[in-house]
Amino acid sequence: MSKWYLKEGKNSDLVFSSRIRLARNLKGFPFPNKMTDEQKYSVIQKVSDAIFKSELKDEYKFIDIDKISEIEAYSLVERHLVSPEFVSDTKGRALILKNDESLSIMINEEDHLRIQALYSGLNLKKSLEEALKIEKVISSNNELSFDEQFGYLTACPTNLGTGLRASVMIHLPALEKLGVLDRIFNNISKMGVAIRGIFGEGSKPKSSMYQISNQVTLGISEQKAIEIIDSITNQLIEKEKEAIYAFERSNLEDDVFRALGTLKFARKMSTEEMFKLISDVRLGVSVGIIDIPIPVINEIVLKTGKAGICLADNVTLDADIRDSKRANYIRDRLSLYN
Amino acid sequence: MSKWYLKEGKNSDLVFSSRIRLARNLKGFPFPNKMTDEQKYSVIQKVSDAIFKSELKDEYKFIDIDKISEIEAYSLVERHLVSPEFVSDTKGRALILKNDESLSIMINEEDHLRIQALYSGLNLKKSLEEALKIEKVISSNNELSFDEQFGYLTACPTNLGTGLRASVMIHLPALEKLGVLDRIFNNISKMGVAIRGIFGEGSKPKSSMYQISNQVTLGISEQKAIEIIDSITNQLIEKEKEAIYAFERSNLEDDVFRALGTLKFARKMSTEEMFKLISDVRLGVSVGIIDIPIPVINEIVLKTGKAGICLADNVTLDADIRDSKRANYIRDRLSLYN
Repeated sequence: MSKWYLKEGKNSDLVFSSRIRLARNLKGFPFPNKMTDEQKYSVIQKVSDAIFKSELKDEYKFIDIDKISEIEAYSLVERHLVSPEFVSDTKGRALILKNDESLSIMINEEDHLRIQALYSGLNLKKSLEEALKIEKVISSNNELSFDEQFGYLTACPTNLGTGLRASVMIHLPALEKLGVLDRIFNNISKMGVAIRGIFGEGSKPKSSMYQISNQVTLGISEQKAIEIIDSITNQLIEKEKEAIYAFERSNLEDDVFRALGTLKFARKMSTEEMFKLISDVRLGVSVGIIDIPIPVINEIVLKTGKAGICLADNVTLDADIRDSKRANYIRDRLSLYN
Repeated sequence: MSKWYLKEGKNSDLVFSSRIRLARNLKGFPFPNKMTDEQKYSVIQKVSDAIFKSELKDEYKFIDIDKISEIEAYSLVERHLVSPEFVSDTKGRALILKNDESLSIMINEEDHLRIQALYSGLNLKKSLEEALKIEKVISSNNELSFDEQFGYLTACPTNLGTGLRASVMIHLPALEKLGVLDRIFNNISKMGVAIRGIFGEGSKPKSSMYQISNQVTLGISEQKAIEIIDSITNQLIEKEKEAIYAFERSNLEDDVFRALGTLKFARKMSTEEMFKLISDVRLGVSVGIIDIPIPVINEIVLKTGKAGICLADNVTLDADIRDSKRANYIRDRLSLYN
């Protein structure tokens, strides 16, 4: 079963992923921060039963997050399958993961259930369908905490209502270079939509990747929420495509090919440099300068993080060795493309 | 007839060239700075006659330096065939050039004759033989200014005696990085030998190329002069080879392959960057990290200078266009090597 990021979706040159996250809780249990260990294991059992006794059972695997190595745990974070918080305290928590990694269910994170669906390119509708499909399987055996007036009840009131967070991760290198993102983001934020770089403020790698997500979960339907994100994303795609004309083509080509040359030849590479160079290569693909399949680019980003690169050895390697292994992996992965 | 720099000589990975320059004057004429135009043309005629009526005539061509374009003139400087001074005032001057560019005779530069022989790698003896061979042809028809006590008479007293300048151009990236060159050069200068970067002080490209040449022309034989340069060069070769062990091999490999990757992929390249990257690639060849023929490297350096890159069009191109053409030429030239 091919991983979700190995597929090309609509606008997947610019849109890395469309993600839906549903916050859900089981009736009859306190929220995780108030639960006993026994209650936590009980929730894990009930959710597992629902999935692994259903007809979907072969598509999913159960991961006892408390029993895997730190490397394995952080590689899940790097692949966007779990939150950093989820693996920072693993007791009484579990993960149910679809084999293609397009769907993951964090059990006992902030809520009993955090159902997440990922899709390559811009397709929030499809992600929502997938998330709702597995929610239906779970709720067939378990009653969810739902209030007629408020909607789904959640540990944090910011998720109350739909419990839905729709987000897309989008590559905006041209708008970023033009220095117009602040103004654009300012306008977007007035629509109840958050946009931020995918790395925190401080030492952010220059990946030019931004996450757009809805902030409102109350008094708005799921469909309306994803429609807004969808519409903003389409506008950003148009703006990004226009912005690219502000740059001299020959300079773009030089930047793109230099990035590709370095990725194909370097013997050591930090994650920070990888993010920057991959961003230039992705730009090259989206403006038609080079022809490298987007899935190849996605795979490099998702597999060469600090944890991902240690996964084969399952021990924490020195930075220098990681940098060598990362460069080797990238070189190998790009060997077919010039 | 293959150009001299397309041959591999002894230590040609480190030693770009062995050069001999003989300063000679014809009896019966003042030095060029005191000559009339008529006298200058007369000297040109006499020297040309000697060569083009000899059996060597097919190996040489006559270049009327006053009739070629500025681009052609400066490309001769870049290929080390004439001095910058020679082409700065071309009236009454001429060049006789061997087809393989290993031998050039500047007529009416500072002296009537500046005979220069170039050889790939370390072989000053061979260069001297070649220079003396053509001197013999010229002097068979022309009496040279020679004094029993002083030797060959020259316009500037610093050349009096042998009129010989022996120089090697050597690549010393490891010693340079270790920061020990100043100390070494200090010791060498005490032996009457000059050593300096091949580019002037100010805005020097980081080519890591140094020129070693004798300073003494009086009271010393030609053989002794080249022996000293030969011996110092051999010592520098040994020191450079030892110095390389001070560097982590994996870092060297990374530097070398990154340089190669950029040279093979960039769409624009300045001469300054070319010199720096070619230096890294040459280092990679000399320590066995990559296998690119030295002649290919030499050709890139000699043909992609500011003038050389304009030679095909024979007009001065904009810097941006030069940078594109340079990158294209280099990419093409390196396309076979990975």
